[in-house]
Amino acid sequence: MYFHDKRLQYPVKVDNPDPVYARALQQAIGGIEGEIRVCLQYFFQAWGARGPSKYRDLLLETATEELGHIEMLATAVAMNLEGAPISEKEEVAKDPIDGAVLNGMNFRHILSTGLAALPVNADGVPFDTSHVYASGNLAADMFANVTAESTGRTLAVRLYNMTDDPGMKDMWKFLIARDTMHQQQWLAAIEDMGGIEKMMPIPNSFDQAEENQDVNYTFMGTSRDGSEPVQGRWSSGKSMDGRAEFKSEAMEPKGEEPKLSPPKPGGGAQKEQMSMVQQGVEIAKNALS
Amino acid sequence: MYFHDKRLQYPVKVDNPDPVYARALQQAIGGIEGEIRVCLQYFFQAWGARGPSKYRDLLLETATEELGHIEMLATAVAMNLEGAPISEKEEVAKDPIDGAVLNGMNFRHILSTGLAALPVNADGVPFDTSHVYASGNLAADMFANVTAESTGRTLAVRLYNMTDDPGMKDMWKFLIARDTMHQQQWLAAIEDMGGIEKMMPIPNSFDQAEENQDVNYTFMGTSRDGSEPVQGRWSSGKSMDGRAEFKSEAMEPKGEEPKLSPPKPGGGAQKEQMSMVQQGVEIAKNALS
Amino acid sequence: MYFHDKRLQYPVKVDNPDPVYARALQQAIGGIEGEIRVCLQYFFQAWGARGPSKYRDLLLETATEELGHIEMLATAVAMNLEGAPISEKEEVAKDPIDGAVLNGMNFRHILSTGLAALPVNADGVPFDTSHVYASGNLAADMFANVTAESTGRTLAVRLYNMTDDPGMKDMWKFLIARDTMHQQQWLAAIEDMGGIEKMMPIPNSFDQAEENQDVNYTFMGTSRDGSEPVQGRWSSGKSMDGRAEFKSEAMEPKGEEPKLSPPKPGGGAQKEQMSMVQQGVEIAKNALS
Amino acid sequence: MYFHDKRLQYPVKVDNPDPVYARALQQAIGGIEGEIRVCLQYFFQAWGARGPSKYRDLLLETATEELGHIEMLATAVAMNLEGAPISEKEEVAKDPIDGAVLNGMNFRHILSTGLAALPVNADGVPFDTSHVYASGNLAADMFANVTAESTGRTLAVRLYNMTDDPGMKDMWKFLIARDTMHQQQWLAAIEDMGGIEKMMPIPNSFDQAEENQDVNYTFMGTSRDGSEPVQGRWSSGKSMDGRAEFKSEAMEPKGEEPKLSPPKPGGGAQKEQMSMVQQGVEIAKNALS
Amino acid sequence: MYFHDKRLQYPVKVDNPDPVYARALQQAIGGIEGEIRVCLQYFFQAWGARGPSKYRDLLLETATEELGHIEMLATAVAMNLEGAPISEKEEVAKDPIDGAVLNGMNFRHILSTGLAALPVNADGVPFDTSHVYASGNLAADMFANVTAESTGRTLAVRLYNMTDDPGMKDMWKFLIARDTMHQQQWLAAIEDMGGIEKMMPIPNSFDQAEENQDVNYTFMGTSRDGSEPVQGRWSSGKSMDGRAEFKSEAMEPKGEEPKLSPPKPGGGAQKEQMSMVQQGVEIAKNALS
Amino acid sequence: MYFHDKRLQYPVKVDNPDPVYARALQQAIGGIEGEIRVCLQYFFQAWGARGPSKYRDLLLETATEELGHIEMLATAVAMNLEGAPISEKEEVAKDPIDGAVLNGMNFRHILSTGLAALPVNADGVPFDTSHVYASGNLAADMFANVTAESTGRTLAVRLYNMTDDPGMKDMWKFLIARDTMHQQQWLAAIEDMGGIEKMMPIPNSFDQAEENQDVNYTFMGTSRDGSEPVQGRWSSGKSMDGRAEFKSEAMEPKGEEPKLSPPKPGGGAQKEQMSMVQQGVEIAKNALS
Repeated sequence: MYFHDKRLQYPVKVDNPDPVYARALQQAIGGIEGEIRVCLQYFFQAWGARGPSKYRDLLLETATEELGHIEMLATAVAMNLEGAPISEKEEVAKDPIDGAVLNGMNFRHILSTGLAALPVNADGVPFDTSHVYASGNLAADMFANVTAESTGRTLAVRLYNMTDDPGMKDMWKFLIARDTMHQQQWLAAIEDMGGIEKMMPIPNSFDQAEENQDVNYTFMGTSRDGSEPVQGRWSSGKSMDGRAEFKSEAMEPKGEEPKLSPPKPGGGAQKEQMSMVQQGVEIAKNALS
Repeated sequence: MYFHDKRLQYPVKVDNPDPVYARALQQAIGGIEGEIRVCLQYFFQAWGARGPSKYRDLLLETATEELGHIEMLATAVAMNLEGAPISEKEEVAKDPIDGAVLNGMNFRHILSTGLAALPVNADGVPFDTSHVYASGNLAADMFANVTAESTGRTLAVRLYNMTDDPGMKDMWKFLIARDTMHQQQWLAAIEDMGGIEKMMPIPNSFDQAEENQDVNYTFMGTSRDGSEPVQGRWSSGKSMDGRAEFKSEAMEPKGEEPKLSPPKPGGGAQKEQMSMVQQGVEIAKNALS
Repeated sequence: MYFHDKRLQYPVKVDNPDPVYARALQQAIGGIEGEIRVCLQYFFQAWGARGPSKYRDLLLETATEELGHIEMLATAVAMNLEGAPISEKEEVAKDPIDGAVLNGMNFRHILSTGLAALPVNADGVPFDTSHVYASGNLAADMFANVTAESTGRTLAVRLYNMTDDPGMKDMWKFLIARDTMHQQQWLAAIEDMGGIEKMMPIPNSFDQAEENQDVNYTFMGTSRDGSEPVQGRWSSGKSMDGRAEFKSEAMEPKGEEPKLSPPKPGGGAQKEQMSMVQQGVEIAKNALS
Repeated sequence: MYFHDKRLQYPVKVDNPDPVYARALQQAIGGIEGEIRVCLQYFFQAWGARGPSKYRDLLLETATEELGHIEMLATAVAMNLEGAPISEKEEVAKDPIDGAVLNGMNFRHILSTGLAALPVNADGVPFDTSHVYASGNLAADMFANVTAESTGRTLAVRLYNMTDDPGMKDMWKFLIARDTMHQQQWLAAIEDMGGIEKMMPIPNSFDQAEENQDVNYTFMGTSRDGSEPVQGRWSSGKSMDGRAEFKSEAMEPKGEEPKLSPPKPGGGAQKEQMSMVQQGVEIAKNALS
Repeated sequence: MYFHDKRLQYPVKVDNPDPVYARALQQAIGGIEGEIRVCLQYFFQAWGARGPSKYRDLLLETATEELGHIEMLATAVAMNLEGAPISEKEEVAKDPIDGAVLNGMNFRHILSTGLAALPVNADGVPFDTSHVYASGNLAADMFANVTAESTGRTLAVRLYNMTDDPGMKDMWKFLIARDTMHQQQWLAAIEDMGGIEKMMPIPNSFDQAEENQDVNYTFMGTSRDGSEPVQGRWSSGKSMDGRAEFKSEAMEPKGEEPKLSPPKPGGGAQKEQMSMVQQGVEIAKNALS
Repeated sequence: MYFHDKRLQYPVKVDNPDPVYARALQQAIGGIEGEIRVCLQYFFQAWGARGPSKYRDLLLETATEELGHIEMLATAVAMNLEGAPISEKEEVAKDPIDGAVLNGMNFRHILSTGLAALPVNADGVPFDTSHVYASGNLAADMFANVTAESTGRTLAVRLYNMTDDPGMKDMWKFLIARDTMHQQQWLAAIEDMGGIEKMMPIPNSFDQAEENQDVNYTFMGTSRDGSEPVQGRWSSGKSMDGRAEFKSEAMEPKGEEPKLSPPKPGGGAQKEQMSMVQQGVEIAKNALS
């Protein structure tokens, strides 16, 4: 269960409120690279964790931290909206980039929240929880977490670069640093379980002898002209898991053209899709019904 | 641009059609772990790739392959639906698990497609392209791809284990093997760019000196009682990028309780939320309007 | 069943078309606070109403009225788009707030409708019918309706304040008045059924003796330091339903740390998540298969 | 910011795991009546709260509690999935209602999570945050909260009635009791601000003199035959806010049939939609381009 | 504006309530082939119609009719749910197809509505208004309407074939007939505007001389081996609009391999994606900041 | 299976990059009128095609072509974003329409992709695959395809008219021409199967004698006053399928007011919705439990 402290994890200050930047900040709240996502993702991974309890504990610690990051960003949005125009006639501070503030705002900051944050992204699209990756496989989840923190830190850097506000820059210095650590810690968790080599292929509990041995370490190309696919670390040398040698080849069809049966009578197709026999059956059925 | 061959990449055969398994297979088509996702993800990464062209080429090869995997699975769904019941009175083959076939089907296989695949997951939820991760940062994208193939192979293994059909098992042996390779190749691409250590933290083009140095390699715990957070590879020793030593600490608030201004007059709040001054302004404004 | 009259419920006039305001108006059509929502919500409540028919009738009357409100607003959007720019070179009337009209428009008003309304909100997000609250419990539904009309009137007031157009202001005076009445009438329906006190807790057909008697009238706080939660009408005195006295307390865990079983063999987890016994079983199974 | 305790708020026990009931329980996690919704709703209301701080504090306490309820339910789902079948051949415990367990399960409990909870509803539809109502108007939000707890308790009662499992029933007795209190406390907050009468119409900061006085306390009927609308507490007597007398009337159109301009040349309409003049302009423009 | 009559457009009777069939019926309410879609589609086309008023009138008539069809189907769902089981222990009437009724139901019919219809499809996915096609081009819209009624009648036929209930069959005879007429009437509207030939290509107000003349009547094939594409009415003979002769050819690339610039400094990419010059700039910028 | 050529189907050039136009272009990628939609729609129709193989082949050819169109447009978006501003202070080229470039951009082009295309529409809403119409009825699907190409070409014309860039205009001349052909070819496929008259009503495999003969060729009006519905080609004369004469009439209710049973005890309704008998049962049940 959970507890709160009314104070923020780190100070949030806005020197020059900027309602257009508030729209940009929404990406870090409700975007797929944002904080609601990592918060719920780590919680659901923790709540469903089967196996050694330390990974569950690890996930709970950081999930709980992330909840505080949503709070910081929601506060930052509300502070950037202080004094924002709410009508077309209102006298507005000049937009630093020579356009109209109102045009560049998310109107729902005016219409739906009265100048506060929304759980949506920078385009106003609500977050949906299909982005909560919690697969029941700890290694897959740790890679999902590294990914989330990598796209998350990329987003944070972009938002840091977008603004000149000293308060906002200071907040981002903190959050970028936390993303650095979170990238590290999920990679460390993989090492804690034995390291990338031992973890792969994921899931490592499936007997690799059952998979098709012709294609499991072959890089395949799809160039129309059948030329050799692009070469790199992936096309020759030892595989990353150390279990095989990479090779590469141009792909060719091994299957046949698929043949489906004609539609089932009574199934709502057109007569022209049916075989002659089927059409007869259909006519007879109709005559009898 | 793109070309097709009417034949499949690998043979798809179904020995004993099973319309309930067709519902399960949908997860591999339209699920977040499925083939539409990786196909579009690799294409969008390729089409937006900035930097050395070989990674663009690499992405295009595999994106094009994945399109053929959607085709294989869509064919497998249609074949599992051959002969499926389409009415409640229809004489049905006994469900091998002692229940009714119709109950366990996705009704839209009957109602919306006439016994063919849908671009939806096993619960009938349509795929949406917010799951296409293409961040403009190649390293972040490669981790997203490792993740996609890890959850993808996990799903494939579960679907392999769910069925006894020899044709379906053979198809999965092939697809599981391809997932093995794809996990390998995206990791290999990271190595090709210099390796995990050099790539981190992502994005590595951001000057780490700008991030908060107090918290960028510190594992933080949120236990209510302030006890030391759970220990592991992430809490001490050299960081994964080799640039620092991990440390750990119990988290304490560094910020203050946030104070937002009262609502803006005319902004649709309740009077009780406003300051005394604001309420006076509101009354005056109403009197004058 | 339903009938129409080509005339509008109330006149819609636009003195100075404003295509940016057309974007704002969309919130009142396709937003969660908007008219499609209340229209469908009241219809689905009516069509599923079980119990005294007068509430069904009440719902049908207002649902049908709301359909006419969508029509009024769709007309208002189209009228605000009269003469809107549809290309970047087009000579445009100066934006009253000193920015570019085109930038502030919803581009789909140009690209998808040819200058007419969309069933989307101010951010262009389509309405989805998960927002149709029709629970089968009349009291819960009436509160949902009061809520819908409260957020609806709040939105209407904000849109009224956003514009100076006399025609638009007149339309809003009408629609705001209808929202006033609709708030009243749903509250009146609760009173008609016996009043808030008698209706609560919802559903009132559940025997309250079965609920946990220790916590059903206790306001619980979650401050980390275990301090007394914030006091107010909710923390002492007679409960709103008159059946108990409120009390308050700091919350403490009553449950244990949850312990889930290790993952099921064959279930796609990592070996490292499994017990020693399970790992042996997995190896044996693989050897035999 | 936030802290956690590894223990649950209240014990979660499952005597007889039931994977079909796990599917039903999902509605209480990811459904619109469920716990993710109230948790995020109360947090966003708190983080954006403008006005007296005590309502912000009140919201934070309960938001934090609700996070623990998601945790309890996610645990309950995982426990109900212990031992669930994951393949069609697996020997399964007989379904208590004479059907197949597998058919009645959410397949994603097998395929996507390895027998753990998902942030989706009972139909597998992900939760999306458009359901987070946080309007910036405290009274509207309190009604939204009463609604959420009313539909939430209705759902809880239905889930309580659906099962015979003693552990599950005990958990529900606790959660139903908390819903009782939460209904009470949000109503109490309205009283704390002055009571329903004083709060209405919402928003009460809008000068009611500006709204159309003819229709703001009139119940309107839409019967085709113009008959008097259904009578009740809403059609006569003092209005709920005490400011007027209810009346009722059959609705008649007060507006005209709307007339939109013909489509703009170059706007992608059909020629047949254009006026003769426009068609000439189009032809001339084409000739000159 | 709109009016109602409490009676249904056509009688809805259910002889043998079937809660599993209620799940199937949902597709006709909230599916993309269903009644909410056509209702809102015709209304939005009408409300945004520019050009001759008769098409607006035509659309309004049928939109209003469709509202009554949603009502009929919602009633049919509720009637099929009469007496449905709401708990696992409840004595249930044997499922006619030898399975468990409860397993085959949509649980939200129990949990979210108390045995009434939902605005969702047969898989429980809510309808969303992105499916409302109203393009501002009357001919495109009429084809959208023919499509909607074609998939709608196909669905209706499948639902008719799925059941044996005399009441349900009678309802479908009526609704299928209406779909027949609606297919006819939208085609008739195209003829009313001048016929398919004159309407094409849509939009016909665009000067066809501006389009690329090499490829506007050429059927193009994408076979990998460059073989001639599949022949049919589309590959030779007069085009359907009578303005050209069809031809066919195998497609070859006419463009070049696209070359995007390296990522912008400060844009969050990896260093490895940048040119040497850019990397130098980045280093210098970091050193100076 | 599929192959690629690195070159584009047709050259994509941008003379004057315009990041606001990049936002508009997104509609042609991820909009419902866009290329992802037609690509996936034709693929799913092909993969599920039952009946004569030539229609499957036809669909595969064009599906594969459309994949190359997504690629062209994604390239066009990235090229229009070359040099776009990514911070508020950045010196920006003046927006040709006198506003700020940044305000008019989709911020996710900066924040989520690093200046590349997204699989979303012009409002940033992700594409979802519910728009893939593949009904299993070939005639219905062909109409869906004509519709898709009609709204697609309408969109293309609007985007062509929105820009002055010679490179972009040239690309659109090509894509508009392909839309012309695609409209033609799907109509030609209908003729190839026998023509519109023979195909109707869709599905033509359903025995029309089973549908209600009173209303299957009757245009029905819903004017409140019972006046004759609007006349046109749809109200008299031979029906479009040549099987009947159109007639028209004002609609009147043929059904009764629906009467649903009171709610089921234990189903979570309010007591006030129940009959006296039910309330007694509920009380007794509670007393005994």
